[in-house]
Amino acid sequence: MEDIKKQINFINELEKLKCVKRHNYTLDSNRLENSAEHSWHIAMMAILLFNHKQKELDQLKVIKMLLVHDIVEIYAGDAFLFDEQARKNAVEKERSSLEKLIQLLPDEQGEELKNLWLEFEAKETEEAKFANSLDGLPPLLNHYYVKEDGFNPDNISKDQVVEKKSFIQQFTPSLWPITEEIIYKSRDKGLYH
Amino acid sequence: MEDIKKQINFINELEKLKCVKRHNYTLDSNRLENSAEHSWHIAMMAILLFNHKQKELDQLKVIKMLLVHDIVEIYAGDAFLFDEQARKNAVEKERSSLEKLIQLLPDEQGEELKNLWLEFEAKETEEAKFANSLDGLPPLLNHYYVKEDGFNPDNISKDQVVEKKSFIQQFTPSLWPITEEIIYKSRDKGLYH
Repeated sequence: MEDIKKQINFINELEKLKCVKRHNYTLDSNRLENSAEHSWHIAMMAILLFNHKQKELDQLKVIKMLLVHDIVEIYAGDAFLFDEQARKNAVEKERSSLEKLIQLLPDEQGEELKNLWLEFEAKETEEAKFANSLDGLPPLLNHYYVKEDGFNPDNISKDQVVEKKSFIQQFTPSLWPITEEIIYKSRDKGLYH
Repeated sequence: MEDIKKQINFINELEKLKCVKRHNYTLDSNRLENSAEHSWHIAMMAILLFNHKQKELDQLKVIKMLLVHDIVEIYAGDAFLFDEQARKNAVEKERSSLEKLIQLLPDEQGEELKNLWLEFEAKETEEAKFANSLDGLPPLLNHYYVKEDGFNPDNISKDQVVEKKSFIQQFTPSLWPITEEIIYKSRDKGLYH
């Protein structure tokens, strides 16, 4: 099959990411956020917060990683941050989802996407560290901005959130004060105990 | 107000783009697609179809333009391609929406976003021409892929679609054969008369 047909087929397959539900809500009638709109939101953050990078880095690569990092959820679904069992199972499911997805593409392009995804997950390069920091922020922001006082259905504590998000302090220290501030304000709003 | 507070405020305001409805549907239960997930989809297309560029161009700028091009809909809403009156009214509404939005940001960053948006709209630079071509494709693809045979509530003709999309032929000729093919297949499926 010629390249363009494969690419169009893949672009159609990406429709499915618009149907993968996350654990955050949108502003309109409490719809659950999906992974496609989330991916747009964090790619915008890579434009808006780029001055918080710790070292010189390739912004194009950061944005590509953020656009691509959730496509594995097309077959694997989204695993809630505080569901330890789901997170453990997700690793294997996401890798086989990745293999299945990239087979739709011309070989070289499939490899590019796979490498972007693996680099993001490994959290070793400067680009991956920064991209991961950005990815850690929007669920906090969204939760504080969208949900009503006292909404804490999973009975999450402030300390659990701080622990889960502490990698931001390590990877991108200049984003930590605002991260902590949002966590504390959310606790005061009754979103964490 | 310090920059990071303004930026976070803006990031929260972007939540609203997830609530702007377009004239396409998603795969799950016929929900209308929103402009945030659409923006992600076309940014992915700038990765996948980059080899169709006509000249050397700045991929980072193309992707930034595509991520940013619909944010004006936060206050202006989406104007349906075949609603001539709405399209005419949109121009003014979108410009004032842009001014309102960028005032939330630090000056320099607001200017960057404004310039990206204006460049996209002007369709003069190579980056803008390519980005516009990409933006023209997904409604066609989505319509063909998602909707059932014979769905044509706005009584659109194949010729109207060809005319509206002919700029793709002008800006990015190598994408025109697949564009035409999708339009003709959609006509055969009864999506256009």
